[in-house]
Amino acid sequence: MLPPKIRSLLEDMRVERIRGASWMAQKGAEAYLLLADLLEGNELKNALQEMREELPKVNPTMASLYNLVRFIPVTDDPYLLKSRAEEFLKLIHEAKKEIGNIGSELIDNGDVVITHSFSSAVLEVFASAKMKGRSFRVILTESAPDFEGLALANELSALGISYEVITDAQVGLFSKEATLALVGADNVTRDGAVINKAGTYPLALACYDNSVPFYVAAESFKFHPELNSGDVELVERPYARNGHRVRNILFDVTPWKYIRGIITELGILVPPKEI
Amino acid sequence: MLPPKIRSLLEDMRVERIRGASWMAQKGAEAYLLLADLLEGNELKNALQEMREELPKVNPTMASLYNLVRFIPVTDDPYLLKSRAEEFLKLIHEAKKEIGNIGSELIDNGDVVITHSFSSAVLEVFASAKMKGRSFRVILTESAPDFEGLALANELSALGISYEVITDAQVGLFSKEATLALVGADNVTRDGAVINKAGTYPLALACYDNSVPFYVAAESFKFHPELNSGDVELVERPYARNGHRVRNILFDVTPWKYIRGIITELGILVPPKEI
Repeated sequence: MLPPKIRSLLEDMRVERIRGASWMAQKGAEAYLLLADLLEGNELKNALQEMREELPKVNPTMASLYNLVRFIPVTDDPYLLKSRAEEFLKLIHEAKKEIGNIGSELIDNGDVVITHSFSSAVLEVFASAKMKGRSFRVILTESAPDFEGLALANELSALGISYEVITDAQVGLFSKEATLALVGADNVTRDGAVINKAGTYPLALACYDNSVPFYVAAESFKFHPELNSGDVELVERPYARNGHRVRNILFDVTPWKYIRGIITELGILVPPKEI
Repeated sequence: MLPPKIRSLLEDMRVERIRGASWMAQKGAEAYLLLADLLEGNELKNALQEMREELPKVNPTMASLYNLVRFIPVTDDPYLLKSRAEEFLKLIHEAKKEIGNIGSELIDNGDVVITHSFSSAVLEVFASAKMKGRSFRVILTESAPDFEGLALANELSALGISYEVITDAQVGLFSKEATLALVGADNVTRDGAVINKAGTYPLALACYDNSVPFYVAAESFKFHPELNSGDVELVERPYARNGHRVRNILFDVTPWKYIRGIITELGILVPPKEI
């Protein structure tokens, strides 16, 4: 049985509306740290076994939770657990920094970067480019119905980066103004597709149609080692508006074909020639 | 000087959020009928001269207003004015019926038709297909921020046509489920592009990428005789959300390349081979 504190942490993750896959991985790693404080011996081992089931279910679309679970051994030793969880937290932190460093080299003075939804990896790229003194502008979608885009707008405002907010339906119009596109990822599948907030795929198509290079920022722990894009469960949160049920699948799938490169902490991955 | 009643009718048209280009043309024609009741002689002639300026400005993106103005002579004779305005109203009514008749032949039993925003011509196609006993399903966007899609959902519900509402960002996901796409138009330009509610262009790209035939329903008075797509002013209504200004250009441009055909009251126009 998982302790109530852990259950409540998993519930916080389940209801989160704004934050993306990196935040989820971080909260997951913190749940393991907490477990190491609370349990030991067989109780710990059983709880870790349960976490193998429960943690990926918090958001089955996100590869980060799948990889975190694989990274943590099912052990009765709280010290081993603690050191592995801390290692993963360090990886999250360092990967994001390095992605910022690598990705910011793609941003030149005068660039107009279009993005969709809120990715902390993308924010890190913007922050790093700003630190390097690059002068650029961001076009971002408000990202209905939860408006993660406005959370990103707040962050950009605090960093002194100029931005413009658009509705989700205007990605076609504004991709024509962009010189670069950059989005995050919740899952990079075995067949090289990127699963990210719904609306990413239409943005990629519009960028392709207007010859705007389309990049994805994704830590290596967002790569799924086993699943192809068709096998990933896409989480949905339908809602009601004016008496109508509105479908709300949170993620869509962008094929490799439309992606110029994936910025990871290891470097920029480009599609193989035959694609 | 335009009479206050006419000014107020133009203002109603300016603030309308849900209805499309056919409704605007109808209201415009009704304004001319009203003028024929209110004025005559030189006063009428001066008012009609002023309407040439004022009516297209109500929504410069819409070709229907431009064509209505061309259709109405600058005359001092209220009877001539009345008969021309009535002729245009009849044209609006008959064109829509015929588009419904022609367009419904494209819908087969089992079809899943995806659309965007609210077009009365598209609704007429659905109503006609339903009358002919076709069994089909509609996927429609809620069409933020004014939610015209939900107004369409109400109409479909009243007609007993099954439908599903999606967010604007899910057009990529749901185009994969569709067997046919059908949207309206505010302007078909000389270079064969379709100007319609923003979000139409990404939907067209997604349909093209998934081999879903993409059709446009547009009365002949929505064809602009002079302007190319780059010359049309795209009306914008920015708004504020959570302290951020949100850009809101109402229309985008879909090139002919992505359009399988344009359904008019004269028949279905297809792109020339070389495009």
